[in-house]
Amino acid sequence: MKTTATSVPFEDLHIGDEAIFEREVTEGDVRAFASLSGDTNPMHLDEAYARTTRFGGRVVHGALASAHLSAALATQLPGPGTIYLEQSIRFRRPTRIGDVLTTRVRVVERREDKKFVRLSAEITNQSGEAVATGEALVLPPEHRQRFELPDRA
Amino acid sequence: MKTTATSVPFEDLHIGDEAIFEREVTEGDVRAFASLSGDTNPMHLDEAYARTTRFGGRVVHGALASAHLSAALATQLPGPGTIYLEQSIRFRRPTRIGDVLTTRVRVVERREDKKFVRLSAEITNQSGEAVATGEALVLPPEHRQRFELPDRA
Repeated sequence: MKTTATSVPFEDLHIGDEAIFEREVTEGDVRAFASLSGDTNPMHLDEAYARTTRFGGRVVHGALASAHLSAALATQLPGPGTIYLEQSIRFRRPTRIGDVLTTRVRVVERREDKKFVRLSAEITNQSGEAVATGEALVLPPEHRQRFELPDRA
Repeated sequence: MKTTATSVPFEDLHIGDEAIFEREVTEGDVRAFASLSGDTNPMHLDEAYARTTRFGGRVVHGALASAHLSAALATQLPGPGTIYLEQSIRFRRPTRIGDVLTTRVRVVERREDKKFVRLSAEITNQSGEAVATGEALVLPPEHRQRFELPDRA
């Protein structure tokens, strides 16, 4: 499957502009993330171990939840071609396998001198609870352009 | 393959303690990261597009480089069982496919009241250039424990 996305250059980004990215975190995502990053923390992979901890069971890698923020920026706003410059994120609540995360990004600062844009981000789960909040400084795409992006498949 | 890792609880962590995590970023890692996160930014996947940008070719997802930081914390220091509370990262230079990244983490603050630990992080490439710097606030593992962790395989 493909979805259409539009790149929004610096000139067309305004404070208050918002976008949303929604995605389920699957068992396969957690296994794939562990494999590609080398983060084989048993908190994420070993249910027997995780049950013995204060979390009472496996939790999803925080860095995987924050990958959804990267995806929100790259596919929604500012869209394809966006380059990450800085990111800060605070994890407020565990994400569990099967949770559906909604990442909302919002333009909060435009830096005219460098053509950088700062966005705030909030990631909530299917119960509406904030699992993470943060912000990102990005270099938006150079031109307005439409893309056909591959989907999860 | 398996590697052995040791969990270091709060009591055994000291300011100045350091560890290193080294890993190559492969084409497969970039594809897998795009697939699991939904971040299908053509900057990372489409060489023809990326050549037209100021970067002159594909760059690795910043969020993938920062996943190495998560792996450094989870497999080296404080080790298995570590929970991410906050992370901030600044990307200083593009990472390219095939780069070998070295992530160095260092304990910079111990918060006695909450048993949290703050670590600074520097990610360098095979030429010794800093590709990212940042820090993480974590909840260390509850007990000292040895683990056999699965490797990339």
